[in-house]
Amino acid sequence: MLGKNKIKFIRSLENKKQRAESGLFLAEGNKLVADILPFFECELLVAQSSWMATQGDIKAKELLAVDEEDIKKASLLKTPQDVIAVFVQPANHLDKELLKNELTLILDGIQDPGNLGTIIRLADWFGIKNLICSPDTADVYNPKTVQASMGGIAHVKVFYESLPDLLDEWQDIPVYGTFLDGKTIYQEKLASTGFIVMGNEGKGIRPALAKRITNRLYIPNFPPGTESTESLNVAVATAVICAEFRRQQIYAV
Amino acid sequence: MLGKNKIKFIRSLENKKQRAESGLFLAEGNKLVADILPFFECELLVAQSSWMATQGDIKAKELLAVDEEDIKKASLLKTPQDVIAVFVQPANHLDKELLKNELTLILDGIQDPGNLGTIIRLADWFGIKNLICSPDTADVYNPKTVQASMGGIAHVKVFYESLPDLLDEWQDIPVYGTFLDGKTIYQEKLASTGFIVMGNEGKGIRPALAKRITNRLYIPNFPPGTESTESLNVAVATAVICAEFRRQQIYAV
Repeated sequence: MLGKNKIKFIRSLENKKQRAESGLFLAEGNKLVADILPFFECELLVAQSSWMATQGDIKAKELLAVDEEDIKKASLLKTPQDVIAVFVQPANHLDKELLKNELTLILDGIQDPGNLGTIIRLADWFGIKNLICSPDTADVYNPKTVQASMGGIAHVKVFYESLPDLLDEWQDIPVYGTFLDGKTIYQEKLASTGFIVMGNEGKGIRPALAKRITNRLYIPNFPPGTESTESLNVAVATAVICAEFRRQQIYAV
Repeated sequence: MLGKNKIKFIRSLENKKQRAESGLFLAEGNKLVADILPFFECELLVAQSSWMATQGDIKAKELLAVDEEDIKKASLLKTPQDVIAVFVQPANHLDKELLKNELTLILDGIQDPGNLGTIIRLADWFGIKNLICSPDTADVYNPKTVQASMGGIAHVKVFYESLPDLLDEWQDIPVYGTFLDGKTIYQEKLASTGFIVMGNEGKGIRPALAKRITNRLYIPNFPPGTESTESLNVAVATAVICAEFRRQQIYAV
């Protein structure tokens, strides 16, 4: 049985201010919680005993076996599953020296928490370890972001920084960004280190950052040269670009 | 001033049964409605006069100038914009003969309306004209799908068919699908015609369809050969695959 205060506490983590003040975040779902449990300190785990039985030794400060009704009351999901967990936000440290030898994603004002989560998930797939966001990008600990990241949140580190300041520190590393007048990604030689900047869903990359882009890229539509008022979803565009970076690195002769 | 019945009518189109019975669908947002207005018969358009002033001659059976409060009452969006429109679902005809000369996307049980909309949007970008879905795939006229398609719904035709039956009619066209044991998309020669099958978010391609796949593909993660329990979001995977089909068609020598 889950008390009113516990339900209120769990649900309060939908709120960004509550998350910031408590230093905690929420994750729901049988696979997601199982996947990230080894990587974060767990403050509270409430689950049906059937789910607990599928796990080995569960490390959590507080562990509560509850029934379906309790989960429904505490859940933020439309279709609640069998487990909800509250984790401690890790204290990640951005080692700027390491960025020299890696591909790093830079997000300039991504608004939608689902898009951010999907980008974290694909960064994990394409072996990108760090994601640096403008301060006004969606919160990595928004429950919708955690959900969409599908465990990627345990492997990809997300930082919030002033992006113009960050790029000013790096004068000798390529900075890629997509623009309608860029060179197609298939005709540009893409490096295995550097920054890939992705812009806001509606407005793209802001001017302060756009002027710091050294390599302007474009994902060609089909048939090539067709005029289009349309565009790609930002997570989709990020995926196509990251895939092409990795293809050139491994498969291009 | 928008009457109660009109508000109720608009909001009722969130419901699939209501959409099916009325043959109507809903679209919201300044850019989206402007983009698709020329392509669908408009039954009802309610907008702030400021939005109307940005448009030329608006063709709608019923046109109502309303204020912000009215829009808020009728809108299904968290952040309502200045216009809501009700359109007639078009009667699309699937010309199976044409499929022989094109790339066609096949969706096997995509659940999430947002994923379906994002796939329609990217199909538009990559010049794919037809999307054929299993009957249990999300509804193309779900407001969330229309929203995520960003106007792609005006250019890409979406059909619902029994997929095993459909593929049985085509014995001589390549049928591509992604599997963990597939060949990497960069090492497979991808044709400029054929079917690309994408599976359900959790379960992938169902067995009845899997056995009809002629070319098993895989999107390599990075570094290559790394074991991963993770996967890509289905819209993201569709984009990476479609981009690679088009790259090979245009840029590969």
